[in-house]
Amino acid sequence: MRECNADAPIGVFDSGIGGLTVAREIMSQLPEEKIIYFGDTARLPYGNKSRETIIGYAKQIRRFLESRNVKAIVVACNTASAYALDTLCEDSEIPVVGMIHAGSKVATQVTVNGNIGVIGTSGTTSSGVYKKMMDSLKPGLNVIQKACPLFVPLVEEGLWNSKITDEVARMYLDELKEAQVDTMVLGCTHYPLLKETIARVMGDNVRLVNPAYETARELKEILREEGLLRVNGGRSTGHEFYASDLADKMQEFAGSILTGESINTSKIDITEY
Amino acid sequence: MRECNADAPIGVFDSGIGGLTVAREIMSQLPEEKIIYFGDTARLPYGNKSRETIIGYAKQIRRFLESRNVKAIVVACNTASAYALDTLCEDSEIPVVGMIHAGSKVATQVTVNGNIGVIGTSGTTSSGVYKKMMDSLKPGLNVIQKACPLFVPLVEEGLWNSKITDEVARMYLDELKEAQVDTMVLGCTHYPLLKETIARVMGDNVRLVNPAYETARELKEILREEGLLRVNGGRSTGHEFYASDLADKMQEFAGSILTGESINTSKIDITEY
Repeated sequence: MRECNADAPIGVFDSGIGGLTVAREIMSQLPEEKIIYFGDTARLPYGNKSRETIIGYAKQIRRFLESRNVKAIVVACNTASAYALDTLCEDSEIPVVGMIHAGSKVATQVTVNGNIGVIGTSGTTSSGVYKKMMDSLKPGLNVIQKACPLFVPLVEEGLWNSKITDEVARMYLDELKEAQVDTMVLGCTHYPLLKETIARVMGDNVRLVNPAYETARELKEILREEGLLRVNGGRSTGHEFYASDLADKMQEFAGSILTGESINTSKIDITEY
Repeated sequence: MRECNADAPIGVFDSGIGGLTVAREIMSQLPEEKIIYFGDTARLPYGNKSRETIIGYAKQIRRFLESRNVKAIVVACNTASAYALDTLCEDSEIPVVGMIHAGSKVATQVTVNGNIGVIGTSGTTSSGVYKKMMDSLKPGLNVIQKACPLFVPLVEEGLWNSKITDEVARMYLDELKEAQVDTMVLGCTHYPLLKETIARVMGDNVRLVNPAYETARELKEILREEGLLRVNGGRSTGHEFYASDLADKMQEFAGSILTGESINTSKIDITEY
């Protein structure tokens, strides 16, 4: 491990704006930590691209975050976690935390009937990463994965509560209802914003697991173990936001979900890293 | 102009697979021409990215196509045409044809009441490129532009005919109906695949203009003027397809819309150009 200072910032990245829901959880649970956020808006989305391409993108982003002297990296994107986490961890001198472990762990703990649904992008579900993780944590569960490619564009179109989104949710989720899942992982950072619709379609008896919340908890635990938790510094105010394109648009979205934070977003050329 | 051979191929590019609808029109109207197709599947979509980013991408792609010795380039993507056509034309030694001119021209010719609708991505509609082009061709028309960001993901999800797509189409198109447009430009290469739905929502009295068809006609005219039209060579069979990611997936889609063609798709690293 590289020599790190507990006062160093935490790097958080995503293909775009979805990872801001993870940043929000980190700010809420670890208010003293400073965050360096990067959204790869010039190349988003990641969900319909290949493993090889995503690994290449993620390595560039790690080099950028390392250049900012972060003490840990959170891969706040399920697809990037699915494809690139192993590679990023392999030769890293700092902790790298993905989205898959913490949510999987909670899902395996709370299910009663052993039927767990996982919804995500095509990349996340076809990689089978959640199923493999749950199998390793608690063998013998029935994990059903379902890609929901229209959910991200619906969120980005602002249709968080709409008849159209209800229809689309029913189209995707009916087979998970029929399979009688009692627990469902929202395996894409945009999906918590559709939580109400998804809950309405799935019914009251299905427990929805939000990996953003669970990952922020796991991050706190890891930082504590490594002696990297920032304490007694007071609430952090100097978060930094970067995007590879349309920094203004990301700033606007960040402002709408990170209320009360001072947000200043800069554009960088990520291919230089 | 660079010395060119009429037997040289035509370069056609798009952010992904949508431009294959343009390639299909070119193959149909210019069956003797050989096509080199490039889809930028590692960085798609273009519709929600900035002008500056799209210009950078388009210049890389032009360098790739030039390395394949094409005699002309078709920018088979409305967003790239909107943002990058001027730059690509500026210092080009070969003809560069975009999607905007030919469709605009036909729309201005066929409208009776002067109310023309243009639907496309956010990039295309916010650039105002169709409106500006029509204003220059025939001043005084009432051109109403409307972004339809969900149409592309709906096509890619296979929902070409679905209750959901009907609902989304009504949501987007109602204001164009109220504005009593009698002519509507399908300003995104994916949209001709939703032609039935769009026609149903708009009604029989609205004439739909497909820029892919009109652009292939315009290309033929330009090649003839430049002495670059391939004649008496027989039907071309050696089309080449390239993608920056997921070549297999593009090959599958190409097979479904270019029936009867022999398709072999290769992956290239476009950032090397």
